[in-house]
Amino acid sequence: MTRPITLFTGQWADLPLEEVARLAAGWGYDGLEIACWGDHLDPYRWDDAEYVRGRLELLERHGLTLHAISNHLKGQAVCDDPIDERHRNIVSDRVWGDGDPEGVRQRAAEEMKATARLAAALGVDTVIGFTGSAIWKYVAMFPPVSQDAIDAGYRDFADRWNPILDVFAEVGVRFAHEVHPSEIAYDYWTTVRTLEAIGHRPEFGLNWDPSHMVWQDIDPVAFLWDFKDRIYHVDCKDTRKRMGNGRNGRLGSHLAWADPRRGWDFISTGHGDVPWEDAFRMLNAIGYAGPISVEWEDAGMDRLLGAPEALEFVRSLAFEAPDSAFDAAFATRD
Amino acid sequence: MTRPITLFTGQWADLPLEEVARLAAGWGYDGLEIACWGDHLDPYRWDDAEYVRGRLELLERHGLTLHAISNHLKGQAVCDDPIDERHRNIVSDRVWGDGDPEGVRQRAAEEMKATARLAAALGVDTVIGFTGSAIWKYVAMFPPVSQDAIDAGYRDFADRWNPILDVFAEVGVRFAHEVHPSEIAYDYWTTVRTLEAIGHRPEFGLNWDPSHMVWQDIDPVAFLWDFKDRIYHVDCKDTRKRMGNGRNGRLGSHLAWADPRRGWDFISTGHGDVPWEDAFRMLNAIGYAGPISVEWEDAGMDRLLGAPEALEFVRSLAFEAPDSAFDAAFATRD
Amino acid sequence: MTRPITLFTGQWADLPLEEVARLAAGWGYDGLEIACWGDHLDPYRWDDAEYVRGRLELLERHGLTLHAISNHLKGQAVCDDPIDERHRNIVSDRVWGDGDPEGVRQRAAEEMKATARLAAALGVDTVIGFTGSAIWKYVAMFPPVSQDAIDAGYRDFADRWNPILDVFAEVGVRFAHEVHPSEIAYDYWTTVRTLEAIGHRPEFGLNWDPSHMVWQDIDPVAFLWDFKDRIYHVDCKDTRKRMGNGRNGRLGSHLAWADPRRGWDFISTGHGDVPWEDAFRMLNAIGYAGPISVEWEDAGMDRLLGAPEALEFVRSLAFEAPDSAFDAAFATRD
Amino acid sequence: MTRPITLFTGQWADLPLEEVARLAAGWGYDGLEIACWGDHLDPYRWDDAEYVRGRLELLERHGLTLHAISNHLKGQAVCDDPIDERHRNIVSDRVWGDGDPEGVRQRAAEEMKATARLAAALGVDTVIGFTGSAIWKYVAMFPPVSQDAIDAGYRDFADRWNPILDVFAEVGVRFAHEVHPSEIAYDYWTTVRTLEAIGHRPEFGLNWDPSHMVWQDIDPVAFLWDFKDRIYHVDCKDTRKRMGNGRNGRLGSHLAWADPRRGWDFISTGHGDVPWEDAFRMLNAIGYAGPISVEWEDAGMDRLLGAPEALEFVRSLAFEAPDSAFDAAFATRD
Amino acid sequence: MTRPITLFTGQWADLPLEEVARLAAGWGYDGLEIACWGDHLDPYRWDDAEYVRGRLELLERHGLTLHAISNHLKGQAVCDDPIDERHRNIVSDRVWGDGDPEGVRQRAAEEMKATARLAAALGVDTVIGFTGSAIWKYVAMFPPVSQDAIDAGYRDFADRWNPILDVFAEVGVRFAHEVHPSEIAYDYWTTVRTLEAIGHRPEFGLNWDPSHMVWQDIDPVAFLWDFKDRIYHVDCKDTRKRMGNGRNGRLGSHLAWADPRRGWDFISTGHGDVPWEDAFRMLNAIGYAGPISVEWEDAGMDRLLGAPEALEFVRSLAFEAPDSAFDAAFATRD
Amino acid sequence: MTRPITLFTGQWADLPLEEVARLAAGWGYDGLEIACWGDHLDPYRWDDAEYVRGRLELLERHGLTLHAISNHLKGQAVCDDPIDERHRNIVSDRVWGDGDPEGVRQRAAEEMKATARLAAALGVDTVIGFTGSAIWKYVAMFPPVSQDAIDAGYRDFADRWNPILDVFAEVGVRFAHEVHPSEIAYDYWTTVRTLEAIGHRPEFGLNWDPSHMVWQDIDPVAFLWDFKDRIYHVDCKDTRKRMGNGRNGRLGSHLAWADPRRGWDFISTGHGDVPWEDAFRMLNAIGYAGPISVEWEDAGMDRLLGAPEALEFVRSLAFEAPDSAFDAAFATRD
Repeated sequence: MTRPITLFTGQWADLPLEEVARLAAGWGYDGLEIACWGDHLDPYRWDDAEYVRGRLELLERHGLTLHAISNHLKGQAVCDDPIDERHRNIVSDRVWGDGDPEGVRQRAAEEMKATARLAAALGVDTVIGFTGSAIWKYVAMFPPVSQDAIDAGYRDFADRWNPILDVFAEVGVRFAHEVHPSEIAYDYWTTVRTLEAIGHRPEFGLNWDPSHMVWQDIDPVAFLWDFKDRIYHVDCKDTRKRMGNGRNGRLGSHLAWADPRRGWDFISTGHGDVPWEDAFRMLNAIGYAGPISVEWEDAGMDRLLGAPEALEFVRSLAFEAPDSAFDAAFATRD
Repeated sequence: MTRPITLFTGQWADLPLEEVARLAAGWGYDGLEIACWGDHLDPYRWDDAEYVRGRLELLERHGLTLHAISNHLKGQAVCDDPIDERHRNIVSDRVWGDGDPEGVRQRAAEEMKATARLAAALGVDTVIGFTGSAIWKYVAMFPPVSQDAIDAGYRDFADRWNPILDVFAEVGVRFAHEVHPSEIAYDYWTTVRTLEAIGHRPEFGLNWDPSHMVWQDIDPVAFLWDFKDRIYHVDCKDTRKRMGNGRNGRLGSHLAWADPRRGWDFISTGHGDVPWEDAFRMLNAIGYAGPISVEWEDAGMDRLLGAPEALEFVRSLAFEAPDSAFDAAFATRD
Repeated sequence: MTRPITLFTGQWADLPLEEVARLAAGWGYDGLEIACWGDHLDPYRWDDAEYVRGRLELLERHGLTLHAISNHLKGQAVCDDPIDERHRNIVSDRVWGDGDPEGVRQRAAEEMKATARLAAALGVDTVIGFTGSAIWKYVAMFPPVSQDAIDAGYRDFADRWNPILDVFAEVGVRFAHEVHPSEIAYDYWTTVRTLEAIGHRPEFGLNWDPSHMVWQDIDPVAFLWDFKDRIYHVDCKDTRKRMGNGRNGRLGSHLAWADPRRGWDFISTGHGDVPWEDAFRMLNAIGYAGPISVEWEDAGMDRLLGAPEALEFVRSLAFEAPDSAFDAAFATRD
Repeated sequence: MTRPITLFTGQWADLPLEEVARLAAGWGYDGLEIACWGDHLDPYRWDDAEYVRGRLELLERHGLTLHAISNHLKGQAVCDDPIDERHRNIVSDRVWGDGDPEGVRQRAAEEMKATARLAAALGVDTVIGFTGSAIWKYVAMFPPVSQDAIDAGYRDFADRWNPILDVFAEVGVRFAHEVHPSEIAYDYWTTVRTLEAIGHRPEFGLNWDPSHMVWQDIDPVAFLWDFKDRIYHVDCKDTRKRMGNGRNGRLGSHLAWADPRRGWDFISTGHGDVPWEDAFRMLNAIGYAGPISVEWEDAGMDRLLGAPEALEFVRSLAFEAPDSAFDAAFATRD
Repeated sequence: MTRPITLFTGQWADLPLEEVARLAAGWGYDGLEIACWGDHLDPYRWDDAEYVRGRLELLERHGLTLHAISNHLKGQAVCDDPIDERHRNIVSDRVWGDGDPEGVRQRAAEEMKATARLAAALGVDTVIGFTGSAIWKYVAMFPPVSQDAIDAGYRDFADRWNPILDVFAEVGVRFAHEVHPSEIAYDYWTTVRTLEAIGHRPEFGLNWDPSHMVWQDIDPVAFLWDFKDRIYHVDCKDTRKRMGNGRNGRLGSHLAWADPRRGWDFISTGHGDVPWEDAFRMLNAIGYAGPISVEWEDAGMDRLLGAPEALEFVRSLAFEAPDSAFDAAFATRD
Repeated sequence: MTRPITLFTGQWADLPLEEVARLAAGWGYDGLEIACWGDHLDPYRWDDAEYVRGRLELLERHGLTLHAISNHLKGQAVCDDPIDERHRNIVSDRVWGDGDPEGVRQRAAEEMKATARLAAALGVDTVIGFTGSAIWKYVAMFPPVSQDAIDAGYRDFADRWNPILDVFAEVGVRFAHEVHPSEIAYDYWTTVRTLEAIGHRPEFGLNWDPSHMVWQDIDPVAFLWDFKDRIYHVDCKDTRKRMGNGRNGRLGSHLAWADPRRGWDFISTGHGDVPWEDAFRMLNAIGYAGPISVEWEDAGMDRLLGAPEALEFVRSLAFEAPDSAFDAAFATRD
C-alpha cells in the first residue's frame, strides 16, 4: 500500500487534536487531514516554529503522517454574500471582528493566506477548502438573473482569490477547492467556468469529494478523468439518495440531517451511492498519488462506530493497480 | 368541454394585453390568466370601476373568459431576503421606492392586498403568485443552518402573509401559491410545513405547476392527491430533464435558459417530462373544476409557434371523466 | 392494408349490436369481434339459420366484416371456484339456473360448445374467451398450497375443457384463450403449463392481449415470439402503470377502475405502457394474418371519444412489412 | 445496543421450542418471537400459570427475552372465505372441528382472544398475526366486483375483529397485523382503508414486514413514516425480485418457492431487495423502540446456514442513532 | 425555416435519380443528399461540365436544392481489411478491378478524390462518407490485440486519408465521416483518437448520425456539444433498442434487419430511441446551420410510407431558436 | 459442500503449473481447471502415460482435484478467418507451422482432438474452449452481408467441428464452448443457431461464463434455464459496465483493458455486474453438479490479491439447496 488513508478532522473539532490522533491511530488510519479550527490548527501561528514542531510531534507520537491541511470555514467567508449569522458561527472572533461583511471577507482572505504559509511550514503542499460565492444565492435563477450578474460573480471570485493564490504560489502550496453547493464551483460546468475565471493557474485545483455530485446526477468518476490534472486531493464523503417515494425532493426540503424525508443525506463512507470502486480505479488510471482522506459525516450513526468501519471499507477497495499488464499471461504461447 | 383552457399572460407582458388577447383568442384559448404587470393589470386601480369594466370588456371583445389573476413578481418581494437588483427589475417604482429592503417588502405586501381587491372587483376568486422566502438562500444547508433559523423563516412567512390573507378573506378571494424554488414552499415537505405555518387557513392554497417538481423528483400527480383540498389553480408549465451524460447537473450550473448544458430547462408544454395525462386524470379524480392554464415558457422555441401547439396538446388530453362507470357495459347479463 | 382492424363489442353490450355496428362503421373500423352477451350474439341460436343470416346481414349493412366471436363471460364460469355473486352478474339465467356451482360450470361449458357451433355457422374460425380457474384464488400461495393442489387445478381445467374442445375440433373452430389474471393461464409460465395440460391440442390457442402482461412485467412482444404458433387472435387493450410514488401497488388495492391510487389501470389503446409498434412489427415477423381487434376499456375517458382515437392510433402503427428486403437498395453496385 | 434482535419461531415449528431456543441462543439472538403452533405456545393454556412459567423459564435457561408472540395461522382463518383444505393444514383439530367454514372462523376468533390473554400472561404487549380476508379472492377484480362487495369485505373484517380486539383492550395487549397478500390489508391503500374500517382503534396496529411490499413496488421505508404511530412490531423477511427476463411475472405463476421462474421469492434476510439500512434508519427516526425480529424464510438455502448469517447482517445495520446532533462538531468556532 | 431538410438517396439508389427527386419533391423535401452510386452521381465525371449541369438542372426541375453529396461505399474500401465479397457488392467494376485488396483500396481512394472534385463542381462543400478501418475486426479484443496493432490501425487510416484530404483541401471541400461500427471512428473515444490521428485537420469532420450511438449507449446530444466544431453534416437515421427480454443482445446476433430477435434495428426516423428534439435544440445551440438530412432505413416498413412521415416528424421538431431571449418578457417591470 | 470450486489456470500460464497449484491450494481452492498452454498441459502427450500420471500426481501433492481441462487458444484457430498475428501469439510453433491460414486451422483442429484424448487420459469428461468463427468479423453487418454468407459461416463451423467432436464422442469427453464475442456462438440467439448447426449432438455443450453476457444485456441466469441440458461447465468471470457518462461505449473503443474509458471491463469475480447469487441458485435449480471454476481476470487489480478474495466470494454464495422443502415447517398443524 503506497497511498495513505487519512482521516479529516473537521467533523471532530469538538475534540482536542491529541484525542482525534489517538482515535485515528488506534483504528489504523495512516495519517490526518487536519482542520484549521477547533484546537486542531491555528493558521496565524504559521511562523511560530515551536507550535509547528509541536503539531508535527503530536502526529509522530501516534505514528500518523500529514499530507494536507484544510480550512473550509474561512475560505467560505471569502466570497460569500450575504455574510450572516451562519458565518458568525464558523469563523473566529478575529475574522468576524465587527461583523461588517466586507471586513469579514477580507479578514477571511488573510487567514487563507496564513493557511498557505502554515501548510508550507508543516511541510505539506496542499490546502483544502471552500471558496464561497457571491452568486450561489441565485441558483434558482428566479427572480431573473442577468448574464452580467453571473459573470460578475465569477469575476468577484477571481478578484478575491488571485491575491490569496499569489501567496500560495509564493510558498509552493496548492489550494484544492471542494466542489460543493454554496461555492463558486458546485458542479461540472461551474467547475469549468471557475477554472477559466482563474486562468487555470496551477495553484488552484480541486478536492474531489463525490458526495454532492451523486445527488446532482454528476458522474463523479468521469469528473476525475476530465479534470485529471487538477485533482489535488481526495475526500471520501458519501451520500445516500432516497427519492423513490415521489415526495422526498432533491433539494432536501430545508430539513435537518438524518431526517428521513430529505431526498439525500450524508452517510458513512461506503453506505451510500458513490461508486467507490470505479472511482478508486479511476484514481489509479489518472495517476493520482496523494492521500485518500475519509471525511466522515453521518448524522444517523455514531462516529465512533462509523470511522473505523469506513477505514476498513476504503482500504478494501483502494488497492493499487498491478505492476504489469495482465493479458501477457493469457496470451503466452506454449 | 367544461374546464376552460387559459393562457397565462406573464410571459407576454412585453405586449399590450389587447394584443395578447387577440393572439390567444385566435389560437382558440378559452380565456386568460392575467398578470399584474406590464400593461396587463394594475392592482392599484382595483377601485376604479371604469378601469375594471374596461379590462373585462377587452376580454369580452375577444370572447375570452377570466378565472384568475396573477401577481408572482410582487409576492416574491414580500418575504425575500436579500432584496437586490433582481427585485429592482421585477417590481414597479412604486414598490421599489428608495429600495430599502424592509420598505420594499411592506409595499409589496400592500400590492398583494390590492391584488386581492382587484380580483374581487373583476369577479374572480383566485390570485396566483409567489410568497418569497427569507430562508431559501439556506437551501444548501451550508454554512450550517440551525433549526431555529429555519423555524424563523416559516414564522416570518406567516407574519408577513397573514395580514395579506386577512384581506383575501375579507373580499372572498383565495391566494394560490406556486410551489417553486426560491419560495417558502418549493417541494413536498416544505409545502406541508408552509401549510402548517399558516394554520391551514383556507385563503391560502396552491397553484399546481409541475415544472419544478419533475426535476426535483417530486411526483406531481401524487402531489395533487395529497393536497387535493388546496389545489386552487393549475398552471401547465413543462420541464425537460437532460442529465444522462454525467455532466449536466440538477442545479442548472448557473447557465442561461436554453443552454444545452443545463440539467433541466423549461420547455413548451407537452415537450417535457411532466406526465400530463396522468395529471389531468388525477385532476378529474380529485374533482378539480377550475381552469387549466398554459404557462408557456421555452427559451429555445418561438412563442408564437409554441403557444398554439401547447393549446392543442392540452386540449387533447385534458378531457373530462365519463359520466357513468364503465364496467356496467362489460358486466351486462344477457 | 390487408389485416382488418375490428372493434370488440364486449364493452358496448349495453347498446344494441345495430348501434355498435353503426358507430364502428362510422369511425372507420373494418369489422367487429362480437361478444356473446347483451343482444349481440346468442350462442344457443347457432342452428337457427335465419338468426345467423340476420346477424351477418346486419354487419353487411354497415360494411363490416366478422373474423371472430367472443364469449369471455361464460368461459369464465367453466372452471371457477367459488362460483358466486360475481358470476350471477355475468351469466344468463339459463346458465345460472339454481346457482348450484357445479351446475353453473356445466351449463357454462355447454354454452361454450354452442359458441363453437355458432362461430362455425357464422363462418368464422375463432372464438375468444376465458377459461376460468379453480386455483386462481391460490395466487398468494398462502395459506400454503401444496404442489398437488396446483396440479389438480390444471387437471381440472383439462378435464372440463377437453370435451368443449372436442366440439371445437368437430366444427373446425379454434378457441383463443385470453391470458389474464383469474384464468388458468395468466402469465408466461402458467401459459406454458396450461398448454402442456391440454396436450398442446391445436384447438386451444391464445388471444394475445398485452394489457395484463405489462403490469406483471411480462414482455408482451417476446411472448408473441415464444408462442407464435398459438397466437390465434389479437386484442389491443392497454394498461397504464402508475407506481412511481411508493404507495400505489401492483395489485390495485381493491380500488375501483379509474381510481388514481391503483398501481395500474386499463387505458385507451395507445395511452398506456404497451410497446405497440414493437408488437405490431413482431406480428409481422411471426406471420400473424388475422384481425387486430381494439378492446377498448378506460374508466377515465368517454368511450365515444376513445374508440375512434384508438382506431386511428392502431391504423398508424399496424402497417404491413414491406415486400422486399431493404438492403438491396443500399447495396446496389454502381 | 438497546433494541433486541429476535428470531421468529414460525418457520421452526417442526422443532421443539427448546431446540429452537438452544439454536437461537447459540447464534447470539437476544430473544424469540414465539409462534402459537407446533409445541411452541398453546394459547388455550393462557390461564395455566405453571405452563406459562415453564415457557418463560425455558427462555431464561437460554438467556433469551420475549417481546411478542405470534398467531398468524389462526388469525388467517378468522375472515377467510373460502375455508378449505389449506386451512385444514394450518389450524388445530380444535379450531377445525367439523370443518364447517363459519364454525372454523368463530373458533379461530376465539383462539385469537386466547392468544391475547396468553400474551398478557407472558408479560408481553404484542401479538403478531394475520387477519384473513373475505375479499382477497377478488384481487383481480374480474369477474367484475361491485364497490358494495368490497365495502362488505371491510365491514366483515371489522365485525369479526372488533370483538377480538375488545379482549386485547381488556388485557392491555396490541394486535400487530402483518400487511400481506391474502389479508384484508396487503398494501398501502388497503392498510389505509383497514385502519379506517376499525376506527383506528389503538389495539390494532401493524407488524412491518417489507418482504411483500418490495415486489408490489410499495416503498417499505415511506410506509414506516406514514404509519409511524401504528408500527407495533418489525419482522425482517426479505424478498428477491427476478423479473428482468420478460418471462418471470409479478404474480409468481403458481410456482413453488425456490423455483427460479418465480418473479419474486423469499430469500435470506439481507440477500434480497429490501433497503434494510434505509429502513433501520427510518425506524430510528420514528422512534420505534421494539424488537427487530428475523423472520427467516428461504426455500433455496439451509436455515441452519441462513439464520445466523441473517442475525449478523441485521446487527451490522440496525444500529441506534447517535445521541447528539452531528453538525455541532463541524460548526465549532475556533 | 432556414435549415433545409433533405433526403439521402443512398437507400433509393435502385431507382433513377429523376424518380427519387420526383418523390422527394412531392413529399415536400427541400433538397437531396445525393449518393455517388446507382445512377445518382458518377464521381469520375466531375470534369464533365455538361453532366454536372445536367444533374443540377434535374434538381432544379423538381425545385430541390443540393448541399452535400455522399460516397460511403467507396470510402469504406479505402482502409478495410480484409477486402472481400462484401466489398465486391458495393463498389463498381472500376474500383474492384482484379479484386486485389491493395489495388481495391487505392482505386477507392482515387474515387474519393474524384468525389471531392465532383462536389466542388456541383458547388457544394461537403462530402459524406465512411473511412473503412483496418482494425475494426479487432473489436472483441480477442485473440489478444497489442497496443501496437491498434496504433498501427490509426496510422494506416491517416496514411491513406491524408492524401485524399489534400485534394479536399485543394478544392475547398470538407469530408464528413459518419461515426459507425466498421469504421475507424465508431464511438466517442475512437472519434477522439481519429481526430488526433489526422492532426485535427479541418478538411476532416463528422456526419452526425445518432443511430449507432444509441445502441452503444453513447449520448448523441452530448456528442454534438463535444465535437461542435467538427459537425459538418447531420443525418437523421433512427434506431430502436429491443433488449428488455434478456435474450436479444446488443450485437444483433448476426440476424437480418427486421428480425425481431435483434437487440437493435434501424427504424423509421422518429420511431426509435434517438432523443431527436434534444438533438435539434443542441444543433441550434452549437450554431449548426447546414442541412438536416433524412437517412431513411427501416426493413420493417415500406419506404414510400416512411419517407414522407419522417419528413413531417423532422419538420415538426427541427425548429429554429427564437430571435431574442425569453426572460425579457417575464422580467418586464410594470 | 459438494461442488468443488476450482481455479482456471489460463491467466496464470506464465507461471509453472506447480507454482499455480501451490498458490491455489494455499488459498483453499478445491481443484484446478488446467489450460493446455504454457507448461500446464501438453495435449500432444495424451498417450504418454508417465506424463499424464505426473500431472495427476502434481495435483495430488497439493490436494487438488481435476474436473475439466481447457484449450481456448487452439479452438479459436479452428474456424477463424482471417488468421493473423494475433493467432501467431496464441498458438504453438507446431500449430502455426508456416502460417498458412488453412494449415493453421487444420493443425489447430488436430490439437483439439488430442485435447479430447488427453482429457480422457486424465480421467475428466469435459474440455472447455472456443470454436473460432469465420463470420464474427461481419458482426457490424456492414458492408452488407447476405444471409448466405451467414449461413455459410455456421456450416463452416459444423464442417470443421464435427470431425473433432467425433473424437470427443469416441473417447467419452464433452466439449464445452464458452459463449464469447469472436466465437461462432457469442450470445443467446447465436447459441441457438450454433446448436442447430451441430445437430444438437451431445458432445457439444456450453461453458457458462456470464462476463460477456452482462455487457450485451443478455440475462445470464435465464440463459442457464434455457440451455440447462447443455451447461457442461461453469466459469466465474465477472464484468463491470461503466456506461453512465454518455461517452463510454458498449464496444470498448479499441481501448486497452483497465482503461477507464472502456464501456465495460473484466473485473475480479464479485466486483462486477453479474448477479452471482441468482445464478448459483439457478445452478441448483437446474441440477448442475459440476465444478464452479473461477476464471480470474482483472487488469486493474493484482491477481495475488484477487484470486483468494474471489474464492471467498464464490464460496459464500455458491451454497447448495436445502434437502427438504421449507414450507413444511411453517405449515405444521399444532
